[in-house]
Amino acid sequence: MKAVILLSGGLDSSTILYQAKADGCECYAISFDYQQRHRRELESAKSIALSAGVKVHQIVNCDLTVWGGSALTDKRLELPKKRTLAEMSQNIPITYVPARNTIFLSFALAWAETLEADRIYIGVNALDYSGYPDCRPDYIQAMQEVFRLGTKQGREGNPIKIVTPLIDMKKTEIVQLGNKLGVPWEQTWSCYASGESACGVCDACRLRLAAFAELGLQDPVPYAAV
Amino acid sequence: MKAVILLSGGLDSSTILYQAKADGCECYAISFDYQQRHRRELESAKSIALSAGVKVHQIVNCDLTVWGGSALTDKRLELPKKRTLAEMSQNIPITYVPARNTIFLSFALAWAETLEADRIYIGVNALDYSGYPDCRPDYIQAMQEVFRLGTKQGREGNPIKIVTPLIDMKKTEIVQLGNKLGVPWEQTWSCYASGESACGVCDACRLRLAAFAELGLQDPVPYAAV
Repeated sequence: MKAVILLSGGLDSSTILYQAKADGCECYAISFDYQQRHRRELESAKSIALSAGVKVHQIVNCDLTVWGGSALTDKRLELPKKRTLAEMSQNIPITYVPARNTIFLSFALAWAETLEADRIYIGVNALDYSGYPDCRPDYIQAMQEVFRLGTKQGREGNPIKIVTPLIDMKKTEIVQLGNKLGVPWEQTWSCYASGESACGVCDACRLRLAAFAELGLQDPVPYAAV
Repeated sequence: MKAVILLSGGLDSSTILYQAKADGCECYAISFDYQQRHRRELESAKSIALSAGVKVHQIVNCDLTVWGGSALTDKRLELPKKRTLAEMSQNIPITYVPARNTIFLSFALAWAETLEADRIYIGVNALDYSGYPDCRPDYIQAMQEVFRLGTKQGREGNPIKIVTPLIDMKKTEIVQLGNKLGVPWEQTWSCYASGESACGVCDACRLRLAAFAELGLQDPVPYAAV
């Protein structure tokens, strides 16, 4: 079974890569250099892909800063800091990148069809998340329909399946799953900022730290003193 | 009304750009340099965008030759030649580029959401075409659902609308529409090959020439002697 895995280098996508391996897939990882503020995550993606022993790791260049529209692609916009989990869950935040998962899934689909792959793994998570519209089950179902109708393979009755192992999990459950699968957390990168250490105060750091803390575990990634 | 127009530089996309203008839209054209065999079409896209007086013309780089899978992105594969229209309509041809319209529509969606645009125009055509899966009405409907669920604007009840003026038209009807709208055909480029003149024998040339001939019109684009 062949699978393309969307790998950002963060906690969620690293876990699904290890899940795809555990599911018996031959793994093809795909990452995106979209000139994101936190391009540091691409180094993590490379390490994780190597550790997991993927068959190919493809890094696609697609500059999304040309039109901006997000604090991750326009450095003039400030990252939200020190928000509580309750605050994060209320609105679609400024770190939302317009159509990002649609773009990423489209490229993954193109590659998957060329490889004649069976599956695409994506680490979307509708709980404990920052309210991104393109991380929810109804959106994934709509993309699945696009996969069925928009490709030769789909029209021939053999659509590539979108697999979302984390979609209904809490962040603590994802950490527990990753621990079980042996994900090397120290190689991952979640922080939206671009320092040597993770900032500890952006939404991505706060969610991650809260999950490790709730489980009584130490996150091995270095954090700046806050 | 703001609209993003997918502009390849060919006959169909040039016609929808002029249609969007006629519909009263402020036009933002987007083209893709995917290292296609017929990159010559990008020069046509630039000319047409200028002639139509678009507000911005964005050319996005996204190299699709890294995985190939099509005669348009892998020069080792041969272009079909001198096929009849009946032959073209039978199968999905080797010029099919996996997930191409899904990738293009995703980028257009990202830009449109950033611009707070109302519409995206795409020149897909389900008749008189080479059987591409991602040019059919059910596929477009599926993408429309992705637009609704996968964006902030869509979740807020104001999804960007995909407009497909040509979807049910025959190629002859498209030429007639373009004539009415004043599309400068001599600036357009449809040929899949990469010469100074259009080849006259690839599927795209054959479809185009047949339409002009059926209408008793002369196609002003230069063709190689066949």
